[in-house]
Order: sequence, then structure tokens, then C-alpha cells
Amino acid sequence: MLSYSVVGTGAIGGFYGGRLARAGRTVRFLLHSDYEYVERHGLRVDSCDGDFILPHAEAYNRVEEMPQSDVVLVALKSVNNHDLLPKLLRPLIHEGVTVVLIQNGIGLEDDLKDIFPMLHIVAGLAFICCAKVGPGHICHQDFGSINLGNHSCPRESFDALLSDMRDAGLTAAEVPYLEARWKKAVWNMPFNGMTVALNTSTDKLLNTPATRQLIYDQMLEVIGAAQALGVSTLTSEFAYQMMKTTDQMVPYSPSMKLDFDCGRPMEIEYLYSRPISEAKKAGFEMPKLAMLEAELKFIDELRLSR
Amino acid sequence: MLSYSVVGTGAIGGFYGGRLARAGRTVRFLLHSDYEYVERHGLRVDSCDGDFILPHAEAYNRVEEMPQSDVVLVALKSVNNHDLLPKLLRPLIHEGVTVVLIQNGIGLEDDLKDIFPMLHIVAGLAFICCAKVGPGHICHQDFGSINLGNHSCPRESFDALLSDMRDAGLTAAEVPYLEARWKKAVWNMPFNGMTVALNTSTDKLLNTPATRQLIYDQMLEVIGAAQALGVSTLTSEFAYQMMKTTDQMVPYSPSMKLDFDCGRPMEIEYLYSRPISEAKKAGFEMPKLAMLEAELKFIDELRLSR
Repeated sequence: MLSYSVVGTGAIGGFYGGRLARAGRTVRFLLHSDYEYVERHGLRVDSCDGDFILPHAEAYNRVEEMPQSDVVLVALKSVNNHDLLPKLLRPLIHEGVTVVLIQNGIGLEDDLKDIFPMLHIVAGLAFICCAKVGPGHICHQDFGSINLGNHSCPRESFDALLSDMRDAGLTAAEVPYLEARWKKAVWNMPFNGMTVALNTSTDKLLNTPATRQLIYDQMLEVIGAAQALGVSTLTSEFAYQMMKTTDQMVPYSPSMKLDFDCGRPMEIEYLYSRPISEAKKAGFEMPKLAMLEAELKFIDELRLSR
Repeated sequence: MLSYSVVGTGAIGGFYGGRLARAGRTVRFLLHSDYEYVERHGLRVDSCDGDFILPHAEAYNRVEEMPQSDVVLVALKSVNNHDLLPKLLRPLIHEGVTVVLIQNGIGLEDDLKDIFPMLHIVAGLAFICCAKVGPGHICHQDFGSINLGNHSCPRESFDALLSDMRDAGLTAAEVPYLEARWKKAVWNMPFNGMTVALNTSTDKLLNTPATRQLIYDQMLEVIGAAQALGVSTLTSEFAYQMMKTTDQMVPYSPSMKLDFDCGRPMEIEYLYSRPISEAKKAGFEMPKLAMLEAELKFIDELRLSR
């Protein structure tokens, strides 16, 4: 039984941290705007797997005040990884701590390892539809499994983490690190950007023949990039699966679309620029996703200049 | 000295027909919504090369009433080429008539030749910024040259046409047919679609580094396609020239953007689908422009379903 600190108690951090807490683990939640509310009222999760409330969720609003935990779950947007994240992590890091980056994108663990070379890092890939709908109030609509990819963590710590996740009733699987990251990118790269570029939702993209084909072609670009980088287990069959899975989903706004709609910065760097440049280094071009990256940068720049 | 019938007296038809009429040629204008206005008040061209008015422009509202001319200038949107254009042309066609398609896109002449196998056809590529700003009122902002590509016209008729254009003070050049069409596509394919997809203007696309590079990459796709189809004279140098030319243009909404803003159908078929499929037949892929085609089809479909 490990103890946990959740850095970033939004939809993702609140859901996975909440489930671990409900299963009896010690979980400390770092909150910013919702701190006082959660301190007073606890954390509420409306979930398709069963609603629950943590009336006495351990809430903190400064990392310096958080006790040291065995595991730090990072569920912040990756736009904060260069500046804010190292500052938040420094007080939480001690010998043997495991940091799980439940974030989207490619290259996150390598960048963090550059800053903290001795750190044990795990990639967490959440397959979930959920959103924060109010202060300390998370709505979990669909799915909920998590893939863990071991970047630089001792076997024992990694297994203990996996075991805790499963004790919490979560579908948690170990997937080879690079495969875990790129598998998630197969869904993320097409849908996050395209819903922003065309100001739409997943179902409309799939119900229009031209964009349905485009989404599939973009998925094949991600799979091609992953293969060029040595992930031989990821094949076009997975794109087919992702199309089918998304067909069965309720119409959904991916996280980047929510960020865009709410005027928050978009995770263009780790979701697009980095995977595209990593693939290019391996000699693989992703022309359609590179075009999407350019469109997103244009949209972002125009918005910021207003 | 040839006589002319202008089919589609919008900005393009009004400008080139107007210049020929001002130079003393017989020019018959086919009009639809502006017919009564032009019949009464004539045609007005406000031009950066000098304003002029044709108080007695020959206006018609039915092709059946137009006398036979030596040349038919077609300046309709290509969205009408399958249904409307053959019907409009049939009464105007006689032995020896030359039809000039002053339209954007690839494959227009071949399709018309399938319907009228004996017809003499010329491609007209207008390099011009102009717009219809009111009934019978055209505003010519910049440029104005026209490239003529001989698709299936006897030498003598072609030379007479070229000579008339030059007598009208226009910069008119003969360019080999395929080269003429694809040269225009180098500008048209990136800018028309991207201004719609990102709801913006040419200058903003060029002033944002990510989209500036994207536009250039898309131009190189067009040039690569042209080369694959045997147009060896078109090289990347021309993309560089087009970038520079557009940098010097006033911020501009290309014709597809104007169509989109006004709720008119967009010329997706001849501007995108056709060149992309012609290139594919020659073994050349245009991934970024194929993505743009899909985005435009999505935008078009969503709009029509409203």
C-alpha cells in the first residue's frame, strides 16, 4: 500500500486520486482554485462506474505543506512542464519516490529526467472521458482504464503501483514505455487538434466521409511514426480499433477542445511539435499532422494577439 | 478584331470583357441579377489602372438572344460546369467559335471537350485582385495579367485572341496549356482553402511563421504534382516568387473565401479534388492539400446541413 500526492486535481487527478482514496490509500490532493471548497466539502465524483464522495479528502494548496508520499501523480496540463512542474515537484521528491506523468504527448519523461536525473518516472496513459464540472466536482462519463509505461522506475515500485491501481478497481495494464505513449497518441493527435481546427466534436468528424478518412490517415501517420521509432507492436489494426471505439463513444470534446473553448493554452508542443520532430529524426514524415500543428499554432497565435 | 460574348459578368467577366469593349471590340455581356441595372446604367469598372464606364454595354439576360460571337469568355464559377455551363454554351457554339475558360482549377477543358468534342478551347488564367462591389460595378484592386493556354484551338484563332487582349492594354501571355493551369494552382490551392479553413486573409497566413511554412510546403506539393504530370518548367523557384508577390499584395480574400463568406458554394471539385486525383494517377501524393480538401468538404457539408 503506497501513499500518493496528486499534483493537479482536475478531472484526471481527481478521478484517479479519488479512486485510490476510496480504496483506502492515503491520497493528498494539491488544489489551487478549488482548495477552500474541497477543504470544506470534500471531493465529489459522479461516475458511470458508481458515484462517490470523499468528504474528508486531504486538500493542500502549497506543495511545501504536503507530507512526502511514495508516489506523485502529475495530472497537470503539459503546458506547465517547463516552468511550473519542476518547482512543484522539487519539495515532493525524495529518494525512492515515483513520479507518474498522467499527461498527453511524447517526450515528457525524457524532459523531466533531464531536470531530475535520478528520478523514477512512469508514464500514465488515461483512456477516459471525464471533465471537471464544478469546484471539487468531477464527472466521469465513459471508459477509465489506465496504461502504465515504465520509463525509469525499479521493478518493485512499479509493481506496487500497478497493484494499487487494480485494488482501486481500475483496469490498469503495463505497456512497454514507448508503445504506451504512442498508442495514446494514435487517438490524441487526430481528435484533439481536428476538433479545434474545425470547431466540432468527434462524432461529426467521423460522420463526414472526408474527415473520417482524414482522421484514419492521421492515425496511420502516428502508427508509422511509432514504427519508425521502434514500436513494432503498433500496427494499422489499432487505428481500426480506435475508429470503432470512437464510433461508440458519446459525442465528445477532447481535452484540447475544452482548453480552446475555455481560452486556456493548448498542449501543442508535447501533443504535436515533439512527436513530429521525434519522427522526423527517425526519417519519418507526418505531413497531415504537421499541417494540423501549423493550423493550431495559427489559431493559438491569433487568439493570443487579440 | 474578334467579337466576344461574356458568360458570367461578375468581377472577372466584367473586367476582361469591359477592357475589350473599351478597346473597341464588340462585347456582349450575359447578366442575371444585374441585367436590368446594366441595361439602364451600363457597366462601371473602378480600376487601379484607370477607372472607366461603358454606358452602353450590350447586356443580355438569355443566351438564346445573344448574337453569335467569335469568342465566348466563360467567367462563371466552376461549380456550374457540369449542369449549367453546357446549357448556356449550346446556343453560342458555332463552327470556329473559341471558348475561353477563365476559371480556376484543373481538368475543366477536358471535361468540356467530353461534352463538345469539336470545340476549340483555351484556358484563361487571370492574375488579378478584383471584386464585384455592386450591380454592374466592378472594383479592380491589383494586378490584371492573363495567361492563355491553348487546349484545342487553331493557331490563327489563338493568335487573334492574344492580339486583341494586348490591344486592350492587358498583359497577356501564351503559356503551354498544362503549365498555365498548374502555375495558377500554385497560388490558388494554398490560399483559397487556407483562408476558409482558418477564416483569415492572405497576410495573416504569411505573417505567422507556422502557416507561412505550411503555405510554402503546399505550393511545393502543387509544383511536385505538376512535374509528375510532365510540366518540367515549373520549379520551386516559382513558389518563392509567389510568396514574395503575395507579401506585397494588400490583405486579400481569395475567391473561395468570398464565396464562403457569402454562403455560395465553394469550388472544391476543380480546385482540390481533381488536381489531387490527377496527381495521384501519376503516382504523386499531395497530403497537405488532400487534408485541406477534407477540411473544406467538412466545412461545406456542415454548412449545407444547417
